Amino acid sequence: MAISRVAIIGLGLLGGSVGLAIGEFLPDLTTTGFDSDPATRARAGHRALVGTVCGSAAEAVADADLVIFCVPVGSIVSAAREIRDSLPGHTIISDVGSSKQTVGEALAAALPKHTIIPAHPVAGTERSGPDAGFATLFQHRWCILTPGPDVPAEAVADLSAFWEGLGARIEVMDAAHHDLVLAVTSHIPHLIAYTIVGTASDLEEVTRGEVIKYSAGGFRDFTRIAASDPTMWRDVFLHNRGAVLEMLGRFTEDLTAMQRAIRSGDGEALFDLFTRTRDIRRSIIEEGQDDARPDFGRADHGEND
Amino acid sequence: MAISRVAIIGLGLLGGSVGLAIGEFLPDLTTTGFDSDPATRARAGHRALVGTVCGSAAEAVADADLVIFCVPVGSIVSAAREIRDSLPGHTIISDVGSSKQTVGEALAAALPKHTIIPAHPVAGTERSGPDAGFATLFQHRWCILTPGPDVPAEAVADLSAFWEGLGARIEVMDAAHHDLVLAVTSHIPHLIAYTIVGTASDLEEVTRGEVIKYSAGGFRDFTRIAASDPTMWRDVFLHNRGAVLEMLGRFTEDLTAMQRAIRSGDGEALFDLFTRTRDIRRSIIEEGQDDARPDFGRADHGEND
Repeated sequence: MAISRVAIIGLGLLGGSVGLAIGEFLPDLTTTGFDSDPATRARAGHRALVGTVCGSAAEAVADADLVIFCVPVGSIVSAAREIRDSLPGHTIISDVGSSKQTVGEALAAALPKHTIIPAHPVAGTERSGPDAGFATLFQHRWCILTPGPDVPAEAVADLSAFWEGLGARIEVMDAAHHDLVLAVTSHIPHLIAYTIVGTASDLEEVTRGEVIKYSAGGFRDFTRIAASDPTMWRDVFLHNRGAVLEMLGRFTEDLTAMQRAIRSGDGEALFDLFTRTRDIRRSIIEEGQDDARPDFGRADHGEND
Repeated sequence: MAISRVAIIGLGLLGGSVGLAIGEFLPDLTTTGFDSDPATRARAGHRALVGTVCGSAAEAVADADLVIFCVPVGSIVSAAREIRDSLPGHTIISDVGSSKQTVGEALAAALPKHTIIPAHPVAGTERSGPDAGFATLFQHRWCILTPGPDVPAEAVADLSAFWEGLGARIEVMDAAHHDLVLAVTSHIPHLIAYTIVGTASDLEEVTRGEVIKYSAGGFRDFTRIAASDPTMWRDVFLHNRGAVLEMLGRFTEDLTAMQRAIRSGDGEALFDLFTRTRDIRRSIIEEGQDDARPDFGRADHGEND
């Protein structure tokens, strides 16, 4: 593999996990890292998330073969500007953001002379910050690469080998298609979870204490998703606006149909939907993206570290 | 406690867990049980969910001080009719259903001479059937009782002591209020989860394989909820129609506001909601209704049995 020095910009859940995964699974690689928050840099040094925590982004990337932006999507452009003048000519630029089309365009505009391969490892937890990362976050997860048409195949192969080294499986697709797929498998689920938790918090007839006490009926699982990083998710919705609004439209149509079925007492329509949705769960477990065990097999994946 | 013989009608996740919990935490009590499905009765005997698996509901209740219906809400009335002629006069009638107002009325109509105390232990998993139950399901969970105004205080005290013996905490409330609270903490979350899983299954631009592969972005947690028992949930929505439609209206209003924020690029509105929802998560963990650990502390509660 042509990549031997990796610079990680942003040392939260994702950046920290990339650093720890390199240390565990690709120990021959050298890692540098930077975070704009001094407290995060201190924690990153303490946890040894990367080999060297640098005092500036420019310093972190000075020798890098690969730079990975692990900051909220809305901060990538300013982060790219910070490193522009220190970046070696051969460096591959990538990221881990949850939306790809606008990010790819913004990176291309900010760093027009470099090879840019937007990437999205589809993995995460509801936790954030420098203490949240762990080395096995990417094991058995898919990492989607969305290189533009002019990117050399060799660079895509190098980045693929890197992510495979961290335990991920690779898929290459068009950025616009990525954004549509993730709108439905990630962005709309988060939007819905945030919204219902907000709705429940604002009720007058049902107290906040009641919502909390009786959350074991299903609500608590939504609160877990709705505990995800607010800045990251604000940026996702602002940057994947089109696909999110499109998929939200489909969802609300379907929800309206369910509302009508409940109002008219159409038990058959309800039963049909509730039966159909079991199959997809089975497939997800078979494909290894979740686990039927009560702890979802998370203990095996080292999240207790 | 005045209750020494308990009959459990319906031996799925809930009925089986009640039986196993009695065996573990109230071993002096005698349990009988019945399920209309012969295969379920056979599994119930094999797992010893109750002391005696009976060949009919009438036989199961013949000596009971307490009968607990653990069948889908829509089947309670016919189950009540089956036992009417065999029921001792002093027996307390209860259930575990997720909606209470219509159930209480239906039980009162079917068994007008008996003491009826509808109950709802707010606990469960996405699994169902006679192999799904476990003894610790009710530990640290709330059990809501909704007795009518004419029910003797002593009977409420007896049923409360019974559930406390199984590890639950007791709350007594009005059935209509219960239905409103559970609509928001349980029924709407389930309806939303079922709907988004259905929406994702029906897309043409995004394949089913893609939905499955990239489900780790949040979607997989919804599929877990959407794997719950279809019959039980159909009945919940048909029996708690008013409260569900009311709460669904609030949710869709809030979702529309979020849609508008995304369309207009109002990052502040998004950030405000996404920040607000973190607090409620913290309170749920503090109150012991969920766990911040990766496995949600489920391993401690014996769900691996």
